[in-house]
Amino acid sequence: MAVPHLSLLTFALLFIQLSSSSGGKILVFPLDGSHWVNMKILVEELHAKGHKLEIRVQDKPSSFWSHAWSRFQIQRVLVNQFYQFHKRMSEMVVQMFEDENLMRSLHDAKYDVVLTDPGIGGGAILAHRLQVPLVFNVRWTIQGEAHLLIAPSPLAYIPFTATELTDRMTFTQRIKNVISYTIGMYTLSYMTEPHYKPVVRRYFGPDVDYLTFFVDADIWLMRNDFVFEFPRPTMPNIVYMGGFQCKPPKPLPEDLEEFVQSSGDHGVIVMTLGTLVGKLPQDIAEEIAAAFAQLPQKVIWRYMGHRPASLGNNTLMVSWLPQNDLLGHPKTRVFVTHGGTNGIQEAIYHGVPVVGLPLFFDQPDNLSRIRAKGGAVIVDIAMLDRHIFADALMTVLYNSSYKENMQMLSRLHRDQPMKPLDQAVFWIEYVIRHKGARHLQTHANKMSWFVYNSIDVIAALVTVVLLITFTCISIVRLLWRMIFVGKRVKQE
Amino acid sequence: MAVPHLSLLTFALLFIQLSSSSGGKILVFPLDGSHWVNMKILVEELHAKGHKLEIRVQDKPSSFWSHAWSRFQIQRVLVNQFYQFHKRMSEMVVQMFEDENLMRSLHDAKYDVVLTDPGIGGGAILAHRLQVPLVFNVRWTIQGEAHLLIAPSPLAYIPFTATELTDRMTFTQRIKNVISYTIGMYTLSYMTEPHYKPVVRRYFGPDVDYLTFFVDADIWLMRNDFVFEFPRPTMPNIVYMGGFQCKPPKPLPEDLEEFVQSSGDHGVIVMTLGTLVGKLPQDIAEEIAAAFAQLPQKVIWRYMGHRPASLGNNTLMVSWLPQNDLLGHPKTRVFVTHGGTNGIQEAIYHGVPVVGLPLFFDQPDNLSRIRAKGGAVIVDIAMLDRHIFADALMTVLYNSSYKENMQMLSRLHRDQPMKPLDQAVFWIEYVIRHKGARHLQTHANKMSWFVYNSIDVIAALVTVVLLITFTCISIVRLLWRMIFVGKRVKQE
Repeated sequence: MAVPHLSLLTFALLFIQLSSSSGGKILVFPLDGSHWVNMKILVEELHAKGHKLEIRVQDKPSSFWSHAWSRFQIQRVLVNQFYQFHKRMSEMVVQMFEDENLMRSLHDAKYDVVLTDPGIGGGAILAHRLQVPLVFNVRWTIQGEAHLLIAPSPLAYIPFTATELTDRMTFTQRIKNVISYTIGMYTLSYMTEPHYKPVVRRYFGPDVDYLTFFVDADIWLMRNDFVFEFPRPTMPNIVYMGGFQCKPPKPLPEDLEEFVQSSGDHGVIVMTLGTLVGKLPQDIAEEIAAAFAQLPQKVIWRYMGHRPASLGNNTLMVSWLPQNDLLGHPKTRVFVTHGGTNGIQEAIYHGVPVVGLPLFFDQPDNLSRIRAKGGAVIVDIAMLDRHIFADALMTVLYNSSYKENMQMLSRLHRDQPMKPLDQAVFWIEYVIRHKGARHLQTHANKMSWFVYNSIDVIAALVTVVLLITFTCISIVRLLWRMIFVGKRVKQE
Repeated sequence: MAVPHLSLLTFALLFIQLSSSSGGKILVFPLDGSHWVNMKILVEELHAKGHKLEIRVQDKPSSFWSHAWSRFQIQRVLVNQFYQFHKRMSEMVVQMFEDENLMRSLHDAKYDVVLTDPGIGGGAILAHRLQVPLVFNVRWTIQGEAHLLIAPSPLAYIPFTATELTDRMTFTQRIKNVISYTIGMYTLSYMTEPHYKPVVRRYFGPDVDYLTFFVDADIWLMRNDFVFEFPRPTMPNIVYMGGFQCKPPKPLPEDLEEFVQSSGDHGVIVMTLGTLVGKLPQDIAEEIAAAFAQLPQKVIWRYMGHRPASLGNNTLMVSWLPQNDLLGHPKTRVFVTHGGTNGIQEAIYHGVPVVGLPLFFDQPDNLSRIRAKGGAVIVDIAMLDRHIFADALMTVLYNSSYKENMQMLSRLHRDQPMKPLDQAVFWIEYVIRHKGARHLQTHANKMSWFVYNSIDVIAALVTVVLLITFTCISIVRLLWRMIFVGKRVKQE
């Protein structure tokens, strides 16, 4: 099937009709980049099941990583990029809604469900406008990690995004977590509210909170599971499909297989930093190459930059690699990764230990979860030199606990009542069959934080207690005075 | 397979070895009465899968229902009965733990998992003593509705037990809910703490909270689902197996089928008040019989009391009825029930609307859930007369919405990725395979409410803010005084 390669497309109003059959009618509103890698797998599976799909595409910011290498710089660049991105997205929503022909044709198409990634604002708002049930393929919403928007999230054991904390925090760490949460949620509102709020007001009325559109999905297909994630409260309409993209390895291309086999008992190290990061600053690349050159293992390194002078004979530099097939290869010993969700899930699925070079987004957090479970060593790329990097590699290569822990995670991940991809498809079809899944949505979604936390009730009860106490005290004082004054009068 | 009929057994230390095979080794610690009806189905399924089971049995209080008919009286009787029940149970635990031969044999048996109903205290405490993974077959723990013990439960939309409230409450109802919760949790502690606390202290040390043993189960197989229950927060180790006991109807015995067919298009009403209540006060029975006699339907009524004088020709009184087969019969129009969980689940499974006569335990709540979903009319048995009861029956018989709503619940209930019983077995076997499911348990279980609610962190942050404010004010005052005093000195 010809599913378009989204990263080649720019901001556009484009529909691609994939199939016409007796199945449901699904409007897909994806996010580009690594998010599309995920969505594409779902789309292909739904297509194979005979559903009719229409895909609406738009681009997302990229290449900003090269601007800055310190964490702080990256944060600032990201905030600005996201601000611009959501601005453009909200403009696109207005553009859609003002296009009467488009809206009429969307209405007339009578979709059974909208499938979207709530990392962008368009899909949820469009589904609400069309009054069509909504399914999220989600890890992040426009308001941060998805659970934060719909599930209770006690900050005492739920680490906030980008803190790299675990579910076991010291007192100081819990303070850091609460402060990070406060600043983080404020920052997220700063990036999204100015754009989506006026749009939602304009088309849905002044009393409508734009965030309710995102809370309101029928089913949340979460790219996550509790082999990877720390256990936490969840909701009845959350379906965990973490690792749904993973599959058994296919045989490698002949030359690659030959290279892998040449590693003998030492095995192979696989390194890639994901779709966004093809190049590194030359000095860092040199240190990485030098560290690899010291090792007896063979190395396959996806890298698009200049060939480092220190590159060893044992290292094969490639512009693309079959990641899943390599991770599933019995000779693979370590996976060097930036810690993107897809790569981490594949490492878990195949039970391969990790050396992490996190850059931004959820990468530090993803890696800190695997480290907490004993499957990864993390290296700060800003501090990286050949010794630090080689040390990290050798720790993971020669301390067998890393491999054992990853293999335990692999066994747990694979032991599910139903394959994650089949689950995802089941719940999309469920929403089509029953025209939504309202009975799985809590009434909490429609409550103010005030009511949700019973603040009015507590205030009322405290008032009653105070009133009773006050009345009792008043009566006692009155009686006391009557006696006391009476006495004084007598004495006088 | 010969699974014992527990309700015939009294308080006893008795093991029944059911099977010996290559499967896991499961110690079953059930609760009697309707709870055993559930557990037995699980036990039979596990037996069929080749697991080796040992069952430890004891009785539970019964027949107390006849003492009292008003809600208030029933509550008082129940509290007293449960107090005595938990007292006996804690004594049984001591008796077990003091029996060295028994404990040695239990240790040596090396069970893979303990399967218990945490409505009693013994199973969880024994599992902890033996250091064996623990699976609950649960709707109630010794500390009330199961979710209350492990999942966040905002009282703004989660009705407390026995309030008969729904997830949509007015301000007044929310006040009632908070007060009921406070009193209810206190009452539950009153019934259990004096018994289990000293036992746990004696065998596990003074710092061990007995409730942590109940929070600590690896998997909670919840006799519940979100077709029946209002949607609410849940946890990763809760598996919903509501309706797992339901199955397609078998043909009725010949004479019963003949009676049912004789109802023609009017169909049949099925009435039973569960395993505990075979008889009713005679005046109530007369009113019920008289109401039935007015109707054109045929009635099958499970009743063990004196035959009411007002009994009509259309009513067949029986001492036992094949409930599942009757509810699954196409001629069945209404189910008159006390609202026990098993009966309600079967009504949902077969899509039969309900007239409810709730008595005690969870029955009022079960029925209020079905009423909220438009599938039931509830009659207060203390107010019941022939007119009120006949009105209720006719409403459900002739207003088609009741049937339609129950059939919608039935469709939703049956549309699951996996059958509830298969899910339950899967997760028990999962615990056997992986020696527990620790990775699905939140760290919250090990936290005090103080830390869980971040009260120390908030206090620390508020203190810092206050200190800064105080310091600033002090400095300003000091400066002010220096200037002011300086001036005054000058002026003087």
